[in-house]
Amino acid sequence: MKRIRIGMIGGGQGAFIGAVHRRAMRLDGGFDLVAGCFSRDPANTRETGAALGLAPARLYATWEEMLAREAALPPGERIEAVCIVTPNHLHAPQAIAALAAGFHVAIDKPLATSVPEAEAIAAAAARAGRVLALTHNYSGSPMVREARELVRAGALGEIRKVYAEYLQGWLSEPLEAAGQKQAAWRTDPAQAGPAGALGDIGTHAHHLLEHVTGLRVARLFARLERVVPGRALDDDDMVLLELEGGSSGALCASQVCFGRENGLRLRVFGTRGALEWDQEHPNELRFTDTSGAARTLRAATGATGEASRSLTRLPPGHPEGYLESFANIYSAFARAVRGEGDPLDAPFPGAAEGVRGARFIAAALESSRTGRWTEG
Amino acid sequence: MKRIRIGMIGGGQGAFIGAVHRRAMRLDGGFDLVAGCFSRDPANTRETGAALGLAPARLYATWEEMLAREAALPPGERIEAVCIVTPNHLHAPQAIAALAAGFHVAIDKPLATSVPEAEAIAAAAARAGRVLALTHNYSGSPMVREARELVRAGALGEIRKVYAEYLQGWLSEPLEAAGQKQAAWRTDPAQAGPAGALGDIGTHAHHLLEHVTGLRVARLFARLERVVPGRALDDDDMVLLELEGGSSGALCASQVCFGRENGLRLRVFGTRGALEWDQEHPNELRFTDTSGAARTLRAATGATGEASRSLTRLPPGHPEGYLESFANIYSAFARAVRGEGDPLDAPFPGAAEGVRGARFIAAALESSRTGRWTEG
Amino acid sequence: MKRIRIGMIGGGQGAFIGAVHRRAMRLDGGFDLVAGCFSRDPANTRETGAALGLAPARLYATWEEMLAREAALPPGERIEAVCIVTPNHLHAPQAIAALAAGFHVAIDKPLATSVPEAEAIAAAAARAGRVLALTHNYSGSPMVREARELVRAGALGEIRKVYAEYLQGWLSEPLEAAGQKQAAWRTDPAQAGPAGALGDIGTHAHHLLEHVTGLRVARLFARLERVVPGRALDDDDMVLLELEGGSSGALCASQVCFGRENGLRLRVFGTRGALEWDQEHPNELRFTDTSGAARTLRAATGATGEASRSLTRLPPGHPEGYLESFANIYSAFARAVRGEGDPLDAPFPGAAEGVRGARFIAAALESSRTGRWTEG
Amino acid sequence: MKRIRIGMIGGGQGAFIGAVHRRAMRLDGGFDLVAGCFSRDPANTRETGAALGLAPARLYATWEEMLAREAALPPGERIEAVCIVTPNHLHAPQAIAALAAGFHVAIDKPLATSVPEAEAIAAAAARAGRVLALTHNYSGSPMVREARELVRAGALGEIRKVYAEYLQGWLSEPLEAAGQKQAAWRTDPAQAGPAGALGDIGTHAHHLLEHVTGLRVARLFARLERVVPGRALDDDDMVLLELEGGSSGALCASQVCFGRENGLRLRVFGTRGALEWDQEHPNELRFTDTSGAARTLRAATGATGEASRSLTRLPPGHPEGYLESFANIYSAFARAVRGEGDPLDAPFPGAAEGVRGARFIAAALESSRTGRWTEG
Repeated sequence: MKRIRIGMIGGGQGAFIGAVHRRAMRLDGGFDLVAGCFSRDPANTRETGAALGLAPARLYATWEEMLAREAALPPGERIEAVCIVTPNHLHAPQAIAALAAGFHVAIDKPLATSVPEAEAIAAAAARAGRVLALTHNYSGSPMVREARELVRAGALGEIRKVYAEYLQGWLSEPLEAAGQKQAAWRTDPAQAGPAGALGDIGTHAHHLLEHVTGLRVARLFARLERVVPGRALDDDDMVLLELEGGSSGALCASQVCFGRENGLRLRVFGTRGALEWDQEHPNELRFTDTSGAARTLRAATGATGEASRSLTRLPPGHPEGYLESFANIYSAFARAVRGEGDPLDAPFPGAAEGVRGARFIAAALESSRTGRWTEG
Repeated sequence: MKRIRIGMIGGGQGAFIGAVHRRAMRLDGGFDLVAGCFSRDPANTRETGAALGLAPARLYATWEEMLAREAALPPGERIEAVCIVTPNHLHAPQAIAALAAGFHVAIDKPLATSVPEAEAIAAAAARAGRVLALTHNYSGSPMVREARELVRAGALGEIRKVYAEYLQGWLSEPLEAAGQKQAAWRTDPAQAGPAGALGDIGTHAHHLLEHVTGLRVARLFARLERVVPGRALDDDDMVLLELEGGSSGALCASQVCFGRENGLRLRVFGTRGALEWDQEHPNELRFTDTSGAARTLRAATGATGEASRSLTRLPPGHPEGYLESFANIYSAFARAVRGEGDPLDAPFPGAAEGVRGARFIAAALESSRTGRWTEG
Repeated sequence: MKRIRIGMIGGGQGAFIGAVHRRAMRLDGGFDLVAGCFSRDPANTRETGAALGLAPARLYATWEEMLAREAALPPGERIEAVCIVTPNHLHAPQAIAALAAGFHVAIDKPLATSVPEAEAIAAAAARAGRVLALTHNYSGSPMVREARELVRAGALGEIRKVYAEYLQGWLSEPLEAAGQKQAAWRTDPAQAGPAGALGDIGTHAHHLLEHVTGLRVARLFARLERVVPGRALDDDDMVLLELEGGSSGALCASQVCFGRENGLRLRVFGTRGALEWDQEHPNELRFTDTSGAARTLRAATGATGEASRSLTRLPPGHPEGYLESFANIYSAFARAVRGEGDPLDAPFPGAAEGVRGARFIAAALESSRTGRWTEG
Repeated sequence: MKRIRIGMIGGGQGAFIGAVHRRAMRLDGGFDLVAGCFSRDPANTRETGAALGLAPARLYATWEEMLAREAALPPGERIEAVCIVTPNHLHAPQAIAALAAGFHVAIDKPLATSVPEAEAIAAAAARAGRVLALTHNYSGSPMVREARELVRAGALGEIRKVYAEYLQGWLSEPLEAAGQKQAAWRTDPAQAGPAGALGDIGTHAHHLLEHVTGLRVARLFARLERVVPGRALDDDDMVLLELEGGSSGALCASQVCFGRENGLRLRVFGTRGALEWDQEHPNELRFTDTSGAARTLRAATGATGEASRSLTRLPPGHPEGYLESFANIYSAFARAVRGEGDPLDAPFPGAAEGVRGARFIAAALESSRTGRWTEG
């Protein structure tokens, strides 16, 4: 198996998600990280690159330079793909340029800060004929795949109700005022775009909901709040949902729910079955069918289907976690980059899902502003 | 300890909640059930009374007759209190008459089918100087009391967010069409009043939320749905909430969430702490404080306060359940009837809480009809 | 339904288990407690009786007097049954006398302090033709019954391994030295007999194990320890087991496991299925079958069998607890006293189970003393 | 950070643990796998090596050849360490030779099939002055470290009781007879040595117990059974323990507990605190202290200490699992190979722990054979 040569934009020392992407790339051995522009600060890029063992010649002062100089390298040497892990406002220019330069792109969510930007990225990917993977990593979790397959197989009957929630507490205090880097850019409209918690985590919940149920949000009624005094962007969101086909639901996303760590949960109720998944216990899926017993389906066991088992690396009872789900997205991205078929449908989220997320954000912002139900 | 003589209206063979009230009365030995009009069907009353060992002379064909004839008995013989466990539409006439006849009243929720009715009952209780207990039984659960005390003591700081949900699945099918008695009256506007799931279980969630947080719902935005085809009343409800003081929340109540049994849960997030209670595991309260660890407070242990411990009968680790919480309401009712003080504040819900519940229903119905935020 | 008139020996103010028995008798309305000798202290008996509303004439200074004078009352007035809730050393004389006087007997565990005593009680019950119920209350829990039925139906295949444990922490400190009444008699060989934790809680675990599996302990190897300095009786026990038919297991009972409350758990592993029950979450039974999924069977749901459902009073999701399981034993006792058949096999533990428990204690004491495997 | 060049013996296609070691090496980027003799079958080695992208020249037909030829390469090119993932009987010759050739060694458990073999490996490591890491991976789990630190800090007071269990069900059927490769060598005395489940998983439980408590097993009483007919080695083990200092405990290990996946659990009870860890939910540690509340300490939160936090890569609520704990062992091994100090005490298990494990096996085998307590 040939490793894919990849370069990274963002993810310098002090960042969180860059290191996650690097571990996710490494885990299954599908990538070689060979180039980077890890920061606007060249010293940070140099230090980050050195710690990672990258050749100094492949460390670049600007991302534009990286794209240009890498594109000029011989085909067997230059990067084949770019990983973009910068604040949201940079996603569109960077992704569009990378795609135009012929690189495949893996990019952190949300895809962009507006629907037009997201659509422009999608168009650029289509134009370039390159692969774009959007790291809604939770969809790489085996039991999320199991949930999706159960719905597709009709095990729940007709879906009636969906509850998605993503509750965190880490922004209960104004950390941005104290200079905490992760808090600072996420609460700054200039970098994060017009949505705070909604873009940062609400879009994860939205994608998870649509990915598992196969239903799109048709209309929504949102109440976005700024709970911590002085915060410029929403940090607490409640959204009522109408889904295609007439079912309904609710989506809550908050970063001020004191005490919650990374509380992403999905519950789906149908006419003949129900399922529940909790990101903090990702190897289990609760499923209730007409027998009346709640069955705990555990990853990699014989109680699960082939699709979810293909996303596990270990025997039953050997927990896999966040990084493993992230690595599943990268491995599917790698298969697509290598032009291989994928045994799974929708093996990773891409530009279309990114546009869906941008529309969700835009609709929720509008609904919250107008106090009206809005098309999602 | 003198037992209180009590009579029951409703609760004949085939009913559910009547037997619950009887067990709740018995558990701590505070009541003697000595009279009853258990059904509109005199034969049912006779059979129910016989099975309970009641004297035939104290079994009455109509509730009006029971009130009149019991009132005419000598003071040391006649009932002192009446328990009302009939469908909602009968609550107001029966409660008002019982109070007027000088009896104390224990009554199942919701108090009434409209705000004016609820207010009339409240006025009747005030006028008569008699005790009225509304069996929102979950507030009798020790760990609900613990939650309330933690909030009152400031352990959560300022409350920011409240999620209450009450999800059941037993009405996923149109059982009313199949003649299931519990389903039939609850889905019939003539007996249940204008609210279905909202009145039957939503009011429990609403009371629990206000009881624990000490905050009233100020405004709400509701979407009430009738999911099962042909059903006349709401069976699935989502309500966004604004609470006094500016915090917000959501309340979901559904009887069509397939697979859920009696899923009443409350989560409260404050600036310095958070708590979570799940009715299906009632002896535990999850509490997270600034130490960062989630503490599982278990009933009757030294980790709990005096107030909640006063509501337990057993050492730690000996589970108490639904009936025990119900019996706590009855025991507090008994203390009030006997004119004793109560060590707890708000020891049981009464007419005021019933009026709150009726207002909540009315506001949610109006909001759902108009699509607007409505005062709660 | 005629209530059974019952008298109580023991259970005065300050006792624990007496109040439990009284609530268990009351819950389903099957008994009238009409007589008592609650304590060796007549003042305690008078006060306890008064608080319970008993007629002063039915309060007795000694249990011998109670038996004699009640037996002399007219048949329609005198007690029909006696409840014995005294320290272990009194069980044999009291039970034998009560049976000889023609009364049915409900008695707390362990049945007696030695095998000969237990056999003498069993013989007395047989001779008198009276019912004896031994309140191993956990066998009254619906999901324990479900477990037993699953085993009987072959759902586990052949049983291979059984783990029973009963861990408490309340005797981690020498409470007996501080005069705590519950600790005092349980750690006093003169009152508790030769076994401490083994008799107090180990016999519960032993009975549960044999009741659910239907297999008897054939041989055992025990290590009984006195962990708290100065304690005269075992407070921490480990027992390896060989069961009839060749399967094996372990039973641990401790009252010095700091932090455990009432941790009685049973796990049974067969060739085709496995089950797990935890007394602190009694409404759930975990069952794994060849499908590979762990199914959580919840009390009163359609996922359970008729036998266990007959032991529930409430719809699914309405937790029943310790007192309800205890009341199930009493209700089965009542049916037997009334001469009714019982829909369940082994509806309550009796003298035979008490003899089994006494043998288990004797064998474990001997094994621990000799360091050898001993017949159980 | 310079990556350590490493070669692997064993772990060819079809093996389980080899791929685990490779992922564990990759996750944090500390190793380059550059050489291998993955199988006795050269074709397997070639294919495995090719799939991993190794240079054909660094794939060897025999492990002896690999050691010899790698040692002959220039220092900047040759491997620095060897990873040994072969069946147990090969551990001693391979490890001793690798150490003698100057390589550091990472080796799967159990270290060896006998105490003399284990001691010989330990002596070889000491003689060579090379690092030996034994992959008892569970000790790399953050919350196991947290448990160890709590014990060391005295948070439990004096330890009284320890229960360790490791229950699996995958060998409930004679898979070895069906040619399942993992089952075949583990149940074959020629490859696995004299212990079956005891060596394969019992040693994990034993190491975990000694690692967390800091107490050694002083004496033990074991009952090792072969439950599945025809099996040559134990598949179900119960061991009573006496620990240094007078506390006691039990260790159960089984591979025939139907339905269990990878059920490694440790419970430690002290005079002032208790803790409980379950490998299947590795990010949580239950800790009960004198406050009476069970605290759930979750990885990476402020409720944990610096030591355990140093073993996490992600913010709270982002689950890390089996591979991450394994990678922590490798990262500590890397630090030791690079000659760096380690912030943790006992950062990874080594030869001494391997000798402890071999002694535990030998003592249990002897005790089970003689029916006597044996020094551990």
